[in-house]
Amino acid sequence: MAVYVEKTVSSDKIFSGKILNLRVDTVEMPDGSTATREIVEHHGAVAVAAVDAEGMIYLVRQYRKPVEEVLLEIPAGKLEIGEDAVECAHRELLEETGLKAESLEKVFTYYTTPGFTTEAIHIFVASGLTQYEAQPDEDEFLDLVKLPLDEAYAMIRSGEIKDGKSIVALQHLKLIR
Amino acid sequence: MAVYVEKTVSSDKIFSGKILNLRVDTVEMPDGSTATREIVEHHGAVAVAAVDAEGMIYLVRQYRKPVEEVLLEIPAGKLEIGEDAVECAHRELLEETGLKAESLEKVFTYYTTPGFTTEAIHIFVASGLTQYEAQPDEDEFLDLVKLPLDEAYAMIRSGEIKDGKSIVALQHLKLIR
Repeated sequence: MAVYVEKTVSSDKIFSGKILNLRVDTVEMPDGSTATREIVEHHGAVAVAAVDAEGMIYLVRQYRKPVEEVLLEIPAGKLEIGEDAVECAHRELLEETGLKAESLEKVFTYYTTPGFTTEAIHIFVASGLTQYEAQPDEDEFLDLVKLPLDEAYAMIRSGEIKDGKSIVALQHLKLIR
Repeated sequence: MAVYVEKTVSSDKIFSGKILNLRVDTVEMPDGSTATREIVEHHGAVAVAAVDAEGMIYLVRQYRKPVEEVLLEIPAGKLEIGEDAVECAHRELLEETGLKAESLEKVFTYYTTPGFTTEAIHIFVASGLTQYEAQPDEDEFLDLVKLPLDEAYAMIRSGEIKDGKSIVALQHLKLIR
């Protein structure tokens, strides 16, 4: 198996923003030719699958401007620079759902769409849940939705759940039962 | 449940590229305040889970510049403007693996990371496979890897497979058996 890299010949910083940066790299290919790579830099994200003792999963419904739709998703958030993923997961779970978890077990770290972004997401499963008040950010407008796990899983098939990280988490929960 | 949208107040086109565009929208929130949304526009993608009669799944190994790693993934590619997803899936499967499928069944369409990109991906399961020559694009350097399905699925747990669409496809194949 040929192991190779695409060496950066030059890098053009296009945009530096609040949640992402964009750069365009000119890279050298294994055969000596060059190509361009448009790369969205992102610090990463966490998401939490929280299922309580009654087998109910906690989901959030929010408008997602990029897709101009209200989506149903597991609670999630962006990692701040230097923030620990476990701490971020606890924080986002509390902010979005008001839940505190006794423990968070990391089940996946994967790249959401590595063809053009650096984003890695850490998926956690929460256990030992206690319900407090949700504390969303000032520009977050969320509805909390509690569903039996099987019903949420069926919403993947029906297309009502169409968010990548939520599908990964729900499939995982179905596989481990 | 409150149904709401984030109305676009103004839109700033930052970058128009080969595989993506970037824009920044100023949006009006439900409470009348404004916020900015950094949005990566992407035409979409397809990916194909191809398992042959012996239970071997066809994967491709390629360097992904955004994450600076060689990743193991199911065959996939970007949708061209106006291209039909099924035709794209047949095309990408042939180019990347040399496989022709008698039929492709779409099992998912989902948003890869809707917090900042429009990208939707269509996941297909291929059946009735015949092996021809792979015909990769000139800037695609791929290795074809054929593995027993269970071995590929175990590579999710070990972290050797860390690509979102591949995890979704492999978990799906595991769940339907």
